[in-house]
Amino acid sequence: MTQTHFPRSRLVTEAEADKEDLFDYFYDQPGSTPGTLIIEADATPPEIFLIDYNEANSTSVKLSTPEECIDYLDTESVSWVDVSGLGSEDILQRLGEVFGLHPLVLEDIVHVPQRPKVEEYEDHLLILVQMVMPKPNKDGFWIEQVSFVLGQHYLLSVQEEPQRDCFEAVRDRILFNKGNVRKTGADYLAYALIDAVIDGFFPVLEDYGERIAALEDEVILKPSHKTLKKIYAVKRELLALRRYIWPLRNAINSLTKADSGLISSDVIIYLRDCYDHTIQVLDILETYRELASGLMDVYLSAMSNKMNEIMKVLTVISTIFIPMTFIAGVYGMNFEYMPELKWPWGYYTCWGMMIAVAATLCFFFWRRGWFQDSASVNDD
Amino acid sequence: MTQTHFPRSRLVTEAEADKEDLFDYFYDQPGSTPGTLIIEADATPPEIFLIDYNEANSTSVKLSTPEECIDYLDTESVSWVDVSGLGSEDILQRLGEVFGLHPLVLEDIVHVPQRPKVEEYEDHLLILVQMVMPKPNKDGFWIEQVSFVLGQHYLLSVQEEPQRDCFEAVRDRILFNKGNVRKTGADYLAYALIDAVIDGFFPVLEDYGERIAALEDEVILKPSHKTLKKIYAVKRELLALRRYIWPLRNAINSLTKADSGLISSDVIIYLRDCYDHTIQVLDILETYRELASGLMDVYLSAMSNKMNEIMKVLTVISTIFIPMTFIAGVYGMNFEYMPELKWPWGYYTCWGMMIAVAATLCFFFWRRGWFQDSASVNDD
Amino acid sequence: MTQTHFPRSRLVTEAEADKEDLFDYFYDQPGSTPGTLIIEADATPPEIFLIDYNEANSTSVKLSTPEECIDYLDTESVSWVDVSGLGSEDILQRLGEVFGLHPLVLEDIVHVPQRPKVEEYEDHLLILVQMVMPKPNKDGFWIEQVSFVLGQHYLLSVQEEPQRDCFEAVRDRILFNKGNVRKTGADYLAYALIDAVIDGFFPVLEDYGERIAALEDEVILKPSHKTLKKIYAVKRELLALRRYIWPLRNAINSLTKADSGLISSDVIIYLRDCYDHTIQVLDILETYRELASGLMDVYLSAMSNKMNEIMKVLTVISTIFIPMTFIAGVYGMNFEYMPELKWPWGYYTCWGMMIAVAATLCFFFWRRGWFQDSASVNDD
Amino acid sequence: MTQTHFPRSRLVTEAEADKEDLFDYFYDQPGSTPGTLIIEADATPPEIFLIDYNEANSTSVKLSTPEECIDYLDTESVSWVDVSGLGSEDILQRLGEVFGLHPLVLEDIVHVPQRPKVEEYEDHLLILVQMVMPKPNKDGFWIEQVSFVLGQHYLLSVQEEPQRDCFEAVRDRILFNKGNVRKTGADYLAYALIDAVIDGFFPVLEDYGERIAALEDEVILKPSHKTLKKIYAVKRELLALRRYIWPLRNAINSLTKADSGLISSDVIIYLRDCYDHTIQVLDILETYRELASGLMDVYLSAMSNKMNEIMKVLTVISTIFIPMTFIAGVYGMNFEYMPELKWPWGYYTCWGMMIAVAATLCFFFWRRGWFQDSASVNDD
Amino acid sequence: MTQTHFPRSRLVTEAEADKEDLFDYFYDQPGSTPGTLIIEADATPPEIFLIDYNEANSTSVKLSTPEECIDYLDTESVSWVDVSGLGSEDILQRLGEVFGLHPLVLEDIVHVPQRPKVEEYEDHLLILVQMVMPKPNKDGFWIEQVSFVLGQHYLLSVQEEPQRDCFEAVRDRILFNKGNVRKTGADYLAYALIDAVIDGFFPVLEDYGERIAALEDEVILKPSHKTLKKIYAVKRELLALRRYIWPLRNAINSLTKADSGLISSDVIIYLRDCYDHTIQVLDILETYRELASGLMDVYLSAMSNKMNEIMKVLTVISTIFIPMTFIAGVYGMNFEYMPELKWPWGYYTCWGMMIAVAATLCFFFWRRGWFQDSASVNDD
Repeated sequence: MTQTHFPRSRLVTEAEADKEDLFDYFYDQPGSTPGTLIIEADATPPEIFLIDYNEANSTSVKLSTPEECIDYLDTESVSWVDVSGLGSEDILQRLGEVFGLHPLVLEDIVHVPQRPKVEEYEDHLLILVQMVMPKPNKDGFWIEQVSFVLGQHYLLSVQEEPQRDCFEAVRDRILFNKGNVRKTGADYLAYALIDAVIDGFFPVLEDYGERIAALEDEVILKPSHKTLKKIYAVKRELLALRRYIWPLRNAINSLTKADSGLISSDVIIYLRDCYDHTIQVLDILETYRELASGLMDVYLSAMSNKMNEIMKVLTVISTIFIPMTFIAGVYGMNFEYMPELKWPWGYYTCWGMMIAVAATLCFFFWRRGWFQDSASVNDD
Repeated sequence: MTQTHFPRSRLVTEAEADKEDLFDYFYDQPGSTPGTLIIEADATPPEIFLIDYNEANSTSVKLSTPEECIDYLDTESVSWVDVSGLGSEDILQRLGEVFGLHPLVLEDIVHVPQRPKVEEYEDHLLILVQMVMPKPNKDGFWIEQVSFVLGQHYLLSVQEEPQRDCFEAVRDRILFNKGNVRKTGADYLAYALIDAVIDGFFPVLEDYGERIAALEDEVILKPSHKTLKKIYAVKRELLALRRYIWPLRNAINSLTKADSGLISSDVIIYLRDCYDHTIQVLDILETYRELASGLMDVYLSAMSNKMNEIMKVLTVISTIFIPMTFIAGVYGMNFEYMPELKWPWGYYTCWGMMIAVAATLCFFFWRRGWFQDSASVNDD
Repeated sequence: MTQTHFPRSRLVTEAEADKEDLFDYFYDQPGSTPGTLIIEADATPPEIFLIDYNEANSTSVKLSTPEECIDYLDTESVSWVDVSGLGSEDILQRLGEVFGLHPLVLEDIVHVPQRPKVEEYEDHLLILVQMVMPKPNKDGFWIEQVSFVLGQHYLLSVQEEPQRDCFEAVRDRILFNKGNVRKTGADYLAYALIDAVIDGFFPVLEDYGERIAALEDEVILKPSHKTLKKIYAVKRELLALRRYIWPLRNAINSLTKADSGLISSDVIIYLRDCYDHTIQVLDILETYRELASGLMDVYLSAMSNKMNEIMKVLTVISTIFIPMTFIAGVYGMNFEYMPELKWPWGYYTCWGMMIAVAATLCFFFWRRGWFQDSASVNDD
Repeated sequence: MTQTHFPRSRLVTEAEADKEDLFDYFYDQPGSTPGTLIIEADATPPEIFLIDYNEANSTSVKLSTPEECIDYLDTESVSWVDVSGLGSEDILQRLGEVFGLHPLVLEDIVHVPQRPKVEEYEDHLLILVQMVMPKPNKDGFWIEQVSFVLGQHYLLSVQEEPQRDCFEAVRDRILFNKGNVRKTGADYLAYALIDAVIDGFFPVLEDYGERIAALEDEVILKPSHKTLKKIYAVKRELLALRRYIWPLRNAINSLTKADSGLISSDVIIYLRDCYDHTIQVLDILETYRELASGLMDVYLSAMSNKMNEIMKVLTVISTIFIPMTFIAGVYGMNFEYMPELKWPWGYYTCWGMMIAVAATLCFFFWRRGWFQDSASVNDD
Repeated sequence: MTQTHFPRSRLVTEAEADKEDLFDYFYDQPGSTPGTLIIEADATPPEIFLIDYNEANSTSVKLSTPEECIDYLDTESVSWVDVSGLGSEDILQRLGEVFGLHPLVLEDIVHVPQRPKVEEYEDHLLILVQMVMPKPNKDGFWIEQVSFVLGQHYLLSVQEEPQRDCFEAVRDRILFNKGNVRKTGADYLAYALIDAVIDGFFPVLEDYGERIAALEDEVILKPSHKTLKKIYAVKRELLALRRYIWPLRNAINSLTKADSGLISSDVIIYLRDCYDHTIQVLDILETYRELASGLMDVYLSAMSNKMNEIMKVLTVISTIFIPMTFIAGVYGMNFEYMPELKWPWGYYTCWGMMIAVAATLCFFFWRRGWFQDSASVNDD
């Protein structure tokens, strides 16, 4: 009952080569029992952090077992249980029991990556999203699934990796009581975290904006085989990003319409704002995709242009010298009776003819504009 | 808590290089507290103008503090508060208090650019639009967000820049009592301003129509590397414009269906007309986009055509002279026994052969139509 | 308060160069007062014709003032007021008063061109359509806006130009009592005229069908730079036509669903037939657009093919003669000791070698099929 | 009041050249009276066949006048009146009277081709479909409109041509009482005929499948100008076929939802099956269209590949011989003082040099892989 | 009453050449009686396996006649009747009687392939799906229709071939009582089998992922004619796969919404999960299709790039040597009076000139970057 990763090209950019493949989803062996958890060999063991707060107080503790949550869950205060790492079947199963999760929910949380979605259950909401973060100092992005389970007074969040997330600012807002997060419930907390995930797409897209802008210059000013590779890579990665944002949009939209009683109408106003951001992300993404697609056409046109330049050089040089060489060839013939050879000014006349031919052809080419460097783009 | 502008290509046309980037939206740092206003360093400080009018009178004053509005807002007469410039957090916050705006509304107004949208609140409507204006004497356009807050007896409009807008004609209509604007309420004023914004797209599009018409000539008559760059620039800017018009269409449409009680049925007839204009703008835009896309194909075909012309010249000249040069080469050989060299008419016979070969090839090329200048397009 | 026409390419076909531009819509200066009529300088002054009929009688008169209609409008008989020419603000304003038109309706009628649409008012329907007519003996079409205002017992139609329309057959049917037009009401008359407008698209499209069929031959048999221009022109004009038909389709559809009481259920059956025709027009149009788009690809492929032919000629001639020329060059060298030169059969051996080389290369090219004229398309 | 056929390209395949044009619809002269029948000059005169059956008996007669049907229509048994040929206005008008058809229905039946559609009238259903049949031993298909009028106890079918249809099998099933057609009503008969029409699309598509498969080989193995023409022809004909199937799908779908009481729920199950077949036809068609479109891209790529091959030959031969010829040229110079010419081994040294240059260049080309025949596709 | 297979290209990959064609659907001769079963000549005779189970027991038997099922069907325990092979009309007809199937249902089961679909009947559901399995050690996949008939206490599944399916794991789960399959009804069994079918698409897609990744390398690093063929093959097979998944998605979706009482709400939760998997399959498929389409563009660009390289070599070599050869030609002329020939340093001066010309041209080419190997892609 193993699971295989989808294949990867040797041309992957650093973003991809690093660790994850951009295009797969998790899948079971056909026919396997639903509800069985499959732990990847290289998954990090889970760490459990709990932040419990109400308007007056906030506590942040690291738990060693899932069962330690139970005390906090029973209180009226909001409990945010943040689990990082998917490396232990035992802990995850117990977590599922503590929070009363359906076996399929637990599978969705553990079997990453899944498509972003929102599912309503009797007393909780399951929200799956994909969090992206730009890589410092290189192209590409990290991607990681974050699963939220939102209950009446608690929020469970499960991440793949403990090292990094984009929730630090939210933790600060709770612990140092900034904004009104402490005055509100678990639904507002869920909003704040989802909003952080969505806002995380902007800097990643900004990166692609920069790469596309650089490619726009390169493709017109100095197109080469490498440019082709880079355009293809950008198109490929944007295609991957898109797969995470489209379903996210639907998920957030269905959240703003959920009437499960778990989300208050105040928070729905905030979620609508969040939905707006998702649309903006999609907007930018689709625009970049159109630009990247356009770049491929421009590349082809630019190559065709370059070819024209090369051909012009060949044609100009060849067609000027070929007739001259012919004339020289004629007077290199060894016929016994060739009157021109005896003329005193024969040699100079011959030069004159050759120069006349060359000049005529040059004039013809000049009139056709073949001597202008039509590859220059910057003057008007 | 800084905010970064999206990247920009070195090939940007003047329109873009000038000041703004066409493809970004404002975004917060992931995880930042919602409702915090971020003021851009180069934003101009806000100026507040108030025009208060009813059927009988109209007053136009410049206010120094937002609180001065309050007196005017209490009356039955229509108050148009026009704020230009987003450079002071303090003033904008106080403005929000005076008009009772939700923190998220204030953020949408200040954090420009946002996607055009309409949002309904309890006692006011928020209408975000993007205003475009053609630049005098150069390609491209200025773009600026205008936010309207429409209440029972007031209209608040917030612009990014104080220097320019397209509302001058509306101000005149109020102050000099032209048309029926003075006889109607704040809803009609909102319509008049939105209509001015939408009509502002037409001259900008007209500009692109002209550029496309010029490119149509250029791409067929005299395609060069610069043409490619220009086509790409037009496609790129139309793509940007499109992003502002599509959501505008939905926003206006939702206005004509709003049943908030803030917009009277008389004004809805006018808004339907306004919606028609938006559709027309979109129509023209999409047509131009299709034309611009078609131009890229034409460019590629024209380049391919040009290459054919170049190759024909090379082929004609080469294939005519190469056999002749060969013949000359043969009689330049130094074999001791070459009977032709001794013939009295050998030299002239040789010329005859060469001319015969050349003539045959010329005939062959002429029959294939290679001597016609197939690059000419104007005769039929 | 002027209005500008959208720009035009120098490559326009006669259709366009003649008078109108295909891609604009009328637009006001941003901020101008709605309801003001703007008269174009070159508009022809309006002429008013009235046909009043019932089952028994029919009268056809030319009126000099709009007010003369009033007598006819009061009767039960159907009055068709046909106004041609938009050149007088005064007459048009008075017309609006006679028929009780909303200022925006009058604007839509006068400010041509507008998008086809149907609008319902309290006691009349506004129907805007675009009428096209093929030009005799040249490519392209005339286009002209026709606005219908349908009331209980009258139909007002307003055209741009008095010289031509496609209503002559309908006038005959009324005056000579052909078919059942005299037995029915104003709604049937409106149907008959709209049907004439829609049927008018067929001959125009037929024209494009012919041009595409001719281009199909040209692009495969004899592609040249002119072909490219022609394909682009067809695509461009079809794009323009499409803009008039798509909204027309929606307009007619909404007519068949209108429940204003102005259109009887009998006429709705006829309008459904009319809607069917619109769909057929669209069908043909989209098919032609696909064909025209396909032609551009075929053109590119055909150019690429042509290039191959050119290159083959160059390659065959060059590669056959270059080695032969080399051999000739070798024996043109002046080394003192070159034994071959002394051989009695040296010269003939040399020719033998050259012919052997040429024959080998010819065989090689023949086996590759480079001697077949692969540009021929008609035998199988 | 003539009607014109849409234009036709000289490149049409046999399918098209034979008789009909694939892209037109019938249209009236603009403004002509609705309800007038226009008979094409080359239409065959109608023949009327009647098959009357109930569970016990079946009669098949050829009628000479439409009025002879009346007796059969009055009985409870199912009467299938099959009219072939549209060449007599008189007979068709009388037919309309016998069956009580609306003038517009009669027009739709006679003015072929029309778009497939279903229309409900008070006591009958009008079903228009297009029947296709593959041509024996050649490419292409025959197309013919079949109109069905389904009443309570009768089915009227009108075909364009008497020679051929695909209903023979259904006639056999009735006359020889195969299956349950005799036990059921006119609705089942209508289903059986429509099903035969739809199943008739499969063999036609099979034909295109074969042509595409052949083109797939041709385009990769041996692309030529003829291939281009053939691909375009297939695309063109599939485009035409598509126009007949898309509206058919909607028509059948609306039949399965009709609640006119004319179609029993048992037959609706059969119609759903029939709808499934339509979807399958569409599925295959769209797949073939995508394949054909893909082929155009492959063609372009294959041409580009072929050009590369040609250029490689030219480049290899030219660049090997040009330097050698240069060397030969050098030692053909006539300078008085050229020491090499005097060397006893000068000639052989010169050959050595030339061979060394050639070998170096060959090695360079071999390393680049230019000697492999990269046009071969069958080994891996 | 034969049925023909759709045509097949000679270029098919092994996947296709093996046995089945990817693009056909089964079709009857037009006009044939619905409900007649057509048995393909090479169909294997059916084998019937029955697994009967409840929470306590499970029995697995091989039946020799369909009628043996009847005893099992009468009990409360779940009976899974698995029929493999469609080679006997008699047995299939009897099977239809045992399970009370409508003749059209039986036809859909036997006449493979059909489009995936779900149909509701009075007391059973028909579910048609296509099962794919990767071929071991070669490209491509096997495809086979599986039809499910779900009743209250039984599930009938009919497969085309007995050798292979992807249900082994489910059989084990029943017989060895793994998971909760034994505790649940026939609806859960149906879910488990459908889930196995859908999960079976993942490994097949993984295969294509690998082939695309390999092609991404090949197309950029070493494009050849074979690459073109391979890209086309991948596009073609993905197109085929897509035809099986799109309708599957709708089928599963309609299952989750069925209210036939045959599917319990517990199982609907599982089916929603199953639907999610279908979406993921589609997601991956569409992504791969976009990548494959992109590859064709990249191929074209890469070919164009390669051509540029070839042309550069030709141009550099030709344009360097042609002027030099000309100079050599000049001094090979035999004029009596050519002063240079007499100069003592003439020969060396001539060499100097030739080298100067070559060096100038080399410098010119070097400055244009034509000596860089622009085909290398791996360094930055």
